[in-house]
Amino acid sequence: MSFSLPERVTLKGPNFIREVFERGVGVPGFISFGIGNPAPEAIPVKVIEDAFDFIVHENPMGLLQYGPMQGDARLSELTLERLSKVHHMNLEGQGLIISNGAGQLLGLVPITVCEPGDEVYMDDYTFTSAINSVRNMGAKAVGIKTDEFGMIPSELEKAAQSGKGKYIYLIPNFQNPTGITMPLERRKEIYAIASKYDLFIYEDDPYGEIRFAGEHVPSFKSFDTENRVLYAGSYSKTLSAGLRVGFLLGPEDVISTIQALKNNTAGQMPLVTQKVVAHVLDQIDYDAHLENVRKVYKSKCDAMMRVFKEKGSSKVHLTEPTGGMFAWMTMPDTVDCDEFFETCMNKNVGIIKCGAFASDGVENGHAFRLSYTVPTIPEIEKGMEILCALTKEYCGE
Amino acid sequence: MSFSLPERVTLKGPNFIREVFERGVGVPGFISFGIGNPAPEAIPVKVIEDAFDFIVHENPMGLLQYGPMQGDARLSELTLERLSKVHHMNLEGQGLIISNGAGQLLGLVPITVCEPGDEVYMDDYTFTSAINSVRNMGAKAVGIKTDEFGMIPSELEKAAQSGKGKYIYLIPNFQNPTGITMPLERRKEIYAIASKYDLFIYEDDPYGEIRFAGEHVPSFKSFDTENRVLYAGSYSKTLSAGLRVGFLLGPEDVISTIQALKNNTAGQMPLVTQKVVAHVLDQIDYDAHLENVRKVYKSKCDAMMRVFKEKGSSKVHLTEPTGGMFAWMTMPDTVDCDEFFETCMNKNVGIIKCGAFASDGVENGHAFRLSYTVPTIPEIEKGMEILCALTKEYCGE
Repeated sequence: MSFSLPERVTLKGPNFIREVFERGVGVPGFISFGIGNPAPEAIPVKVIEDAFDFIVHENPMGLLQYGPMQGDARLSELTLERLSKVHHMNLEGQGLIISNGAGQLLGLVPITVCEPGDEVYMDDYTFTSAINSVRNMGAKAVGIKTDEFGMIPSELEKAAQSGKGKYIYLIPNFQNPTGITMPLERRKEIYAIASKYDLFIYEDDPYGEIRFAGEHVPSFKSFDTENRVLYAGSYSKTLSAGLRVGFLLGPEDVISTIQALKNNTAGQMPLVTQKVVAHVLDQIDYDAHLENVRKVYKSKCDAMMRVFKEKGSSKVHLTEPTGGMFAWMTMPDTVDCDEFFETCMNKNVGIIKCGAFASDGVENGHAFRLSYTVPTIPEIEKGMEILCALTKEYCGE
Repeated sequence: MSFSLPERVTLKGPNFIREVFERGVGVPGFISFGIGNPAPEAIPVKVIEDAFDFIVHENPMGLLQYGPMQGDARLSELTLERLSKVHHMNLEGQGLIISNGAGQLLGLVPITVCEPGDEVYMDDYTFTSAINSVRNMGAKAVGIKTDEFGMIPSELEKAAQSGKGKYIYLIPNFQNPTGITMPLERRKEIYAIASKYDLFIYEDDPYGEIRFAGEHVPSFKSFDTENRVLYAGSYSKTLSAGLRVGFLLGPEDVISTIQALKNNTAGQMPLVTQKVVAHVLDQIDYDAHLENVRKVYKSKCDAMMRVFKEKGSSKVHLTEPTGGMFAWMTMPDTVDCDEFFETCMNKNVGIIKCGAFASDGVENGHAFRLSYTVPTIPEIEKGMEILCALTKEYCGE
């Protein structure tokens, strides 16, 4: 038989991230700024191995039978405590979901709240899975223009006037792919528009704990007086991505509806990974650990910036992240970016074309995402020297 | 703000399963035939603990970073091998998804293939989450009448004439909640109707490996000449439910679309649990293990049946499962089943009212689900004696 599938699930964007991975894998000397993985040096491997050794044998039957749908109670408790004490969020009337990484929330939120035809506003360049999941779930991803402070309020308002908007998806800290952090004033302007058009805000903050320069900016959730913010966080960047533990804080009634839908449509998550994360949090000084994580990221980011400042073309702009994993390189409009990309790949340097992140499907932009997390510092230096030489070749001194 | 949520996600059925759990928990002497958990004696706890000890330390970084979206390659290989060799499925043109238990598939299948208004046909009483997930995803769950052989073909055909049908959801072996197994002839009749109306079949088979009496019945997938069957299986009932490892076999193009949607909307699963399952399969004689599992289930089911035959009312019918976890007790229409249920609970015996499984939301049926998997044999005997005495009290000798 031939299955006819809805258009929303068969839409296929370009897979530039996979392309770089597949073309680079196994190539001797290939340096990839393409991989969005956390820095391996920042993963507390031994601590997590020890946690497994403890948790697996503490109460094995408790891990191997069906467990609580809402996840591990201690993990929820520790997460809420941190959101309240460290991140100054008001927990009154709030519920928490433990999820399969923050990734599972990208699907759960739109499928729970959107009707077909609803619009979701997001940065013109944003996290690929956030775009695709909104489309897959039958809502419309609408890209909003950004500047050096992130989403432009007047552009958001223009879009919101359609009356079809349901929510605004934002990564306010060290955005993926641009590395931009939205200042507080801009956050307040965006919040005011959300309020005016009765939109909610899906604040995705997987990198928030990895600030290595500049001043902390309060989260939307921390000044959410109208209770319109769903705040998503994750232990993927600070402990381990492979354990798949994320969370969502938001208004109790919405959270309980999302939780019920999660129970019906995805079932419970493995308890062992959640208990390992909780055990690690109980065992270590998490803030001291985060300081180490930030040092690792800072030194790698610094290496990338240092070479670029010394050797990059003055016609090319590279964002200077104050945290997180990504920098965004913008080329002059005159450059053929497909050709530039191919030349980089031929010189064994992998970067990601902006089309991978285009929320409106615009693919002819003149920018690239550079991640500094996985290569070593010598590799970053070598890769950036090659890349910088190419920027001069293509764009002039 | 007030979130307005789509009706499909706010529909709430009765939660009779949770009710029995919550009212029974901590009550001394309470015997629950309500819990749908696998028998704890059948879980190879030590083997799984050993597998964790090996896998966690073998290549920890491989577990703690992001891994392959499609899951662990060895687990896929072992699963496909078994489906081909033991279950005689033709793998040509087929793809496999590893999922978070079979539970995650309950959401992934309808969200991938259904448009709003599409109908999904299922038994009049079936697995609660299968009903709810279809509704949550915006399709219509349509209950089809059943007899002692499962779904009635003529009733299915009547419904399919609407032209809105997308697929038929079936648990052909040891159905939840009725324990009924559909004979081969009936399967072929259902398949012919699927063919006539171009429906596909979602064959959910979590209990298939736990046959402890009677003859094996070939799966739909094993005679799927038209490539219209999605076959879902799970390691939850045979190894461990808490590890959350299930799978889906089906036509390559559909599977790749479901996999892409899973990647976008749920992200990858933890690799550690998948590798533990693969390692266990590599280490043990799985068929010998299954023989033990079947013995455990048979002895518990036999205990339930023995007491019922000796002491139950002749006016009450109890299905005789040949595998799986559930039996279905049907009362005369004259009995007030809500009152009967309350009396059972007051006598410390938990059973599940049929309304929990009603795909059309019909709640005034006269049946109960009894699970024999969790209580010990002495508990089963004691609980059944109480229950049988009550059947005589309410229905006569």
